[in-house]
Amino acid sequence: MQTPWTERFAQRTQRMRSSAVRELLKLTEQPDLISFAGGLPAPDVFPVDQFQESTCRLLKEHGTKALQYSTTEGYRPLREMIARHSSRYGIVIEPENVLITSGSQQALDLIGKVFINPGDHLVVERPTYLGALQAWNAYEAEYINVPMDEDGMQPDALEAALRMGPKFIYALPNFQNPTGVTLSLSRRHQLIGLADHYGVPIIEDDPYGQLRYEEEHILSLVALDAQARAHNGAPYTGNIIYLSTFSKTLAPGLRLAWIVAPAEVIQKLVQAKQGADLHTSTFSQMLAYDVARGGFLDQHIKIIRAVYGARRDAMLKALEMYFPPEVTWTKPQGGLFLWATFPEYVDAADVLQAAIKEKVAFVPGTSFFADGTGRNTGRLNFSFCNEKQIADGIYRLSVALKSVLAAKAMAV
Amino acid sequence: MQTPWTERFAQRTQRMRSSAVRELLKLTEQPDLISFAGGLPAPDVFPVDQFQESTCRLLKEHGTKALQYSTTEGYRPLREMIARHSSRYGIVIEPENVLITSGSQQALDLIGKVFINPGDHLVVERPTYLGALQAWNAYEAEYINVPMDEDGMQPDALEAALRMGPKFIYALPNFQNPTGVTLSLSRRHQLIGLADHYGVPIIEDDPYGQLRYEEEHILSLVALDAQARAHNGAPYTGNIIYLSTFSKTLAPGLRLAWIVAPAEVIQKLVQAKQGADLHTSTFSQMLAYDVARGGFLDQHIKIIRAVYGARRDAMLKALEMYFPPEVTWTKPQGGLFLWATFPEYVDAADVLQAAIKEKVAFVPGTSFFADGTGRNTGRLNFSFCNEKQIADGIYRLSVALKSVLAAKAMAV
Repeated sequence: MQTPWTERFAQRTQRMRSSAVRELLKLTEQPDLISFAGGLPAPDVFPVDQFQESTCRLLKEHGTKALQYSTTEGYRPLREMIARHSSRYGIVIEPENVLITSGSQQALDLIGKVFINPGDHLVVERPTYLGALQAWNAYEAEYINVPMDEDGMQPDALEAALRMGPKFIYALPNFQNPTGVTLSLSRRHQLIGLADHYGVPIIEDDPYGQLRYEEEHILSLVALDAQARAHNGAPYTGNIIYLSTFSKTLAPGLRLAWIVAPAEVIQKLVQAKQGADLHTSTFSQMLAYDVARGGFLDQHIKIIRAVYGARRDAMLKALEMYFPPEVTWTKPQGGLFLWATFPEYVDAADVLQAAIKEKVAFVPGTSFFADGTGRNTGRLNFSFCNEKQIADGIYRLSVALKSVLAAKAMAV
Repeated sequence: MQTPWTERFAQRTQRMRSSAVRELLKLTEQPDLISFAGGLPAPDVFPVDQFQESTCRLLKEHGTKALQYSTTEGYRPLREMIARHSSRYGIVIEPENVLITSGSQQALDLIGKVFINPGDHLVVERPTYLGALQAWNAYEAEYINVPMDEDGMQPDALEAALRMGPKFIYALPNFQNPTGVTLSLSRRHQLIGLADHYGVPIIEDDPYGQLRYEEEHILSLVALDAQARAHNGAPYTGNIIYLSTFSKTLAPGLRLAWIVAPAEVIQKLVQAKQGADLHTSTFSQMLAYDVARGGFLDQHIKIIRAVYGARRDAMLKALEMYFPPEVTWTKPQGGLFLWATFPEYVDAADVLQAAIKEKVAFVPGTSFFADGTGRNTGRLNFSFCNEKQIADGIYRLSVALKSVLAAKAMAV
């Protein structure tokens, strides 16, 4: 007889589903469509030549090592490089505080596995990163949504949330995905203070921290927390788990990211990772190390900043020029995304449908809201398309938007 | 104040721990120690030149694609290659039946995530693969242990286990890790028949199927199940999920494996993988495809078979020559491991301790028993060391063993 497979799925799969948006976005794979939907880095900034040089050297000098099994914690020289790099920002980190993960998505999954009991409450920004919700839905988390303004999470709402006994706070302080909003320095101090006061840890997700296009770097939560605790040179043992990635600075196709945390947390995450995928690709790790070392990565990030900064400017300029006055948007200081808010009576899914007809796409915002609100919002990526495409695409999107607004006006 | 991190860990972490064996095995990292402990493929059979050629071509022709994000399902040409390869063995498989995973360990983790509710019972061989227990302990599985003889799981015990309402059966039919035992053809038919009769699915884990050193290939469970169901050319929709890997034939450092399953199972696994690591390294996938295609992998496997077959023979010969008569061992027809059984009154951990003094190591068998038994057993790997090292190592191990046996005889 036939096996009724779906009846054997575990309870937690009830919350795993392909979104309707994902289905709509499949329509965006037409060659002449301009897509602001993805979160893709621009392939034209991938350092392909450098990768070519490094793979040749790596396979010649360490070929059998690069192709063999390796430790769950990650390639030690890469962990040392990350520790050294962190110390530039005033956090004392040993390799024992660093775990290499198969992309930041795995970091989120492992954190879910190690911390979340079914029904545990997590404090998240409203809206927040979709990938975190996907990872943690599988562990049957519940969410407490804290509204944001142009400086990030609002402290009053945050404090109310902390009194609900959450397992942790999840924050994306720099150029947040999806909104592009940056948590201000004073808000960072407030967040760290409140978290410490209520004894609730923070997961700081920082994929874009180095991609700032204006003004000065603001210290990360983990660096501020380390300063406040002043451990006299001992490795970090504070209240924050920090995540970052090579996906936006080197290449996402390698699937390489890392977690910085107190050693006792890393040890448990290592046990979880051992059961999850044994270790991250040795080849990817040794390759990333070889490409990044000797200051190459720092230099390369300057190129990325110049390219993406110009694209952000192009998008802001086009929005100013073409978008109807009923629509507002954020002005991110860095990262890959900005966030548009349509009039309340507009459903972004309708806008997307009209947009696809005009051969342009974006992501409706509601997927980023743990509470299912935000139907009149949308995320626009500015890293992938060049300036000409951005200008054209925003124009096309404005045509789609105006058609939806006009139809709504007719209906009223 | 200090954050009491460990108090925030989820309930499921209670079952995640570093084993005592793992600690002992850290002592085996001395350069002059001969280790039969790992499960490492021999680096001397890695096709490094082929990898060098392929990376150069790949980065030159498809550099930006290889470094970019890609789909969760996996690189389509690789999935097509796996589908074609499966069809050689009489299973009709479409790319929609194939999911690429970050090593087989991730396949086990995703299966746990999609199927196991806390407390669910799983039928496993006694002993079984340690990595599966690690993956599924995190989902709070319980185990029903079915004893094995030289033909694999015993049908009577299996049937009794199936009447306990398990979620699935986990089986390693070819040259099982850890015992090296192969499930005979008649037992395969019995297993498939019983599973179908009780309506319980099978997870078939087959990392070593192509590494057979004598006699003829026995059809996989999934192929036999497909035959029995005779779908007239429609893609497979039977009762079995099949896992295999490139780790033992190409290189483990890439972390590449795959799952073959009915399409509705693959779809749910894809959703789980999206939250777990988004996708497996694009670079690794395209590289493996480029190395494997055009018949190279088939040719390369012949070399591996010749090398490992000779090493297995060397180990069997040395065991015959040096081991005391109180010890027995399996004679695997393929794979990487054989299995030693010491007298009941001997603890393999004591043997390991004595062995390390003699500069040789193996893995005590108890970690492979879900019920914690098997203290007088051990797993010996024969793929990693060359024939000279194998002869020397087995001699050293015999010295250690005899010292433990002599001490026990004194104590009696």
